[in-house]
Amino acid sequence: MYFDILTIFPDLFPGPLAESITGRALKEELIDINPVDIRDFTQDKHGNVDDYPYGGGAGMVMKPEPIYRAHRACAALRGELPETVMLTPQGETFDQDMALELSQLEGLVLICGHYEGIDERVRELVVDREISLGDYVLTGGELPAMIVIDAIARMIPGVVGDERSPRQDSFYQDRLDYPQYTRPREFKDLRVPEVLLSGHHSRIERWRKKKALKRTLARRPDLLEDADLIEEEQELLEEIKEENA
Amino acid sequence: MYFDILTIFPDLFPGPLAESITGRALKEELIDINPVDIRDFTQDKHGNVDDYPYGGGAGMVMKPEPIYRAHRACAALRGELPETVMLTPQGETFDQDMALELSQLEGLVLICGHYEGIDERVRELVVDREISLGDYVLTGGELPAMIVIDAIARMIPGVVGDERSPRQDSFYQDRLDYPQYTRPREFKDLRVPEVLLSGHHSRIERWRKKKALKRTLARRPDLLEDADLIEEEQELLEEIKEENA
Repeated sequence: MYFDILTIFPDLFPGPLAESITGRALKEELIDINPVDIRDFTQDKHGNVDDYPYGGGAGMVMKPEPIYRAHRACAALRGELPETVMLTPQGETFDQDMALELSQLEGLVLICGHYEGIDERVRELVVDREISLGDYVLTGGELPAMIVIDAIARMIPGVVGDERSPRQDSFYQDRLDYPQYTRPREFKDLRVPEVLLSGHHSRIERWRKKKALKRTLARRPDLLEDADLIEEEQELLEEIKEENA
Repeated sequence: MYFDILTIFPDLFPGPLAESITGRALKEELIDINPVDIRDFTQDKHGNVDDYPYGGGAGMVMKPEPIYRAHRACAALRGELPETVMLTPQGETFDQDMALELSQLEGLVLICGHYEGIDERVRELVVDREISLGDYVLTGGELPAMIVIDAIARMIPGVVGDERSPRQDSFYQDRLDYPQYTRPREFKDLRVPEVLLSGHHSRIERWRKKKALKRTLARRPDLLEDADLIEEEQELLEEIKEENA
């Protein structure tokens, strides 16, 4: 899957994505990360990508033409009009379902804003989807683009590898993970729970399911509202509620 | 404000944070980004930071001792037991209020997980707060740490500069931003709204407030539920609801 990133900081890519799982996916050509410098598509002699806002106010606004032309260049390169995402706090909130959905595409164009925002006409002319990472303000769209690429890449078959299916991770089953322990058995007076040393697989499985449910209930009860619980999980949830009562 | 980052990928820092607004804050020593390599605190000869999970299952778990020792080293360096955040999908969801709150601190330790998670005892022994960026799974905590640092740094006085107060940004007033336009007046048959060319400041102000409210109502009505609306905004909201009806 290709990711064409329209940015004024092309040197930031692949950056952190060159390491670990996404780094391997890059080497194996399962993903292609292609930063496109918006400045290369300016036409005035100073290479300005921003200008003053109409109507006044502080800050600068990213001009529509360079982004539009950079986008057209991507379309020409890819031989299709690619699905185009703008990273902005005004967008729909990114989540795991969206990562899975976008991972089915051949590729994506990601537009990274800076300054006080991007001329509204860019949204109207080229953007299919506006995505926000969450309710916080960041300096630019580059870090959010990296996050989105990481989450999407993990959903592409072959990227995470066989050790563990990403389908077991948090959110894949609408609940948080159970606690994990490794050696030593005792550390600073804290011992690994006995059940995990028992070798009794069905008890371990049940303990983990219960802990995952318990944590989800305590921290993110909203996740359980729409969750499909199997009978065993319903039972565990009743047990937890009794214990909490 | 200092950020001590416990990671197995110290070379990723400051990385993207060396550019733009956070880059300037680094140069002006308003923030200090200090990656701490967890591997430097291993004691076995192979420098292993992870081990098999007790109770079985796929993947590896990050061992408690190296992280604990790295954390103690930070505490010694800083002369205090620093507020310690773990980046994990199990945490409370990060938002602008949290960024503002954390920006009041002298410093933060950020622990970046990898593999299938971190031994539970690290949470119990050193973590004050678990923070999640949102409901999606990522390869590690490094990109989330960068996002959190960016959002927090912008709240530190002097970092964003005088051009525009971060208090005007999205979420600072519980609403999305209004649309922005810059030159040219017409691009691809799309014209800048007349009001923005009028020079009539109070009309422009009113138009922007209305657009911001309209967008928030359409995309994120949840943000308006707890918002304190002044009388003018109440009126605008009524107008919008009538127009939509």
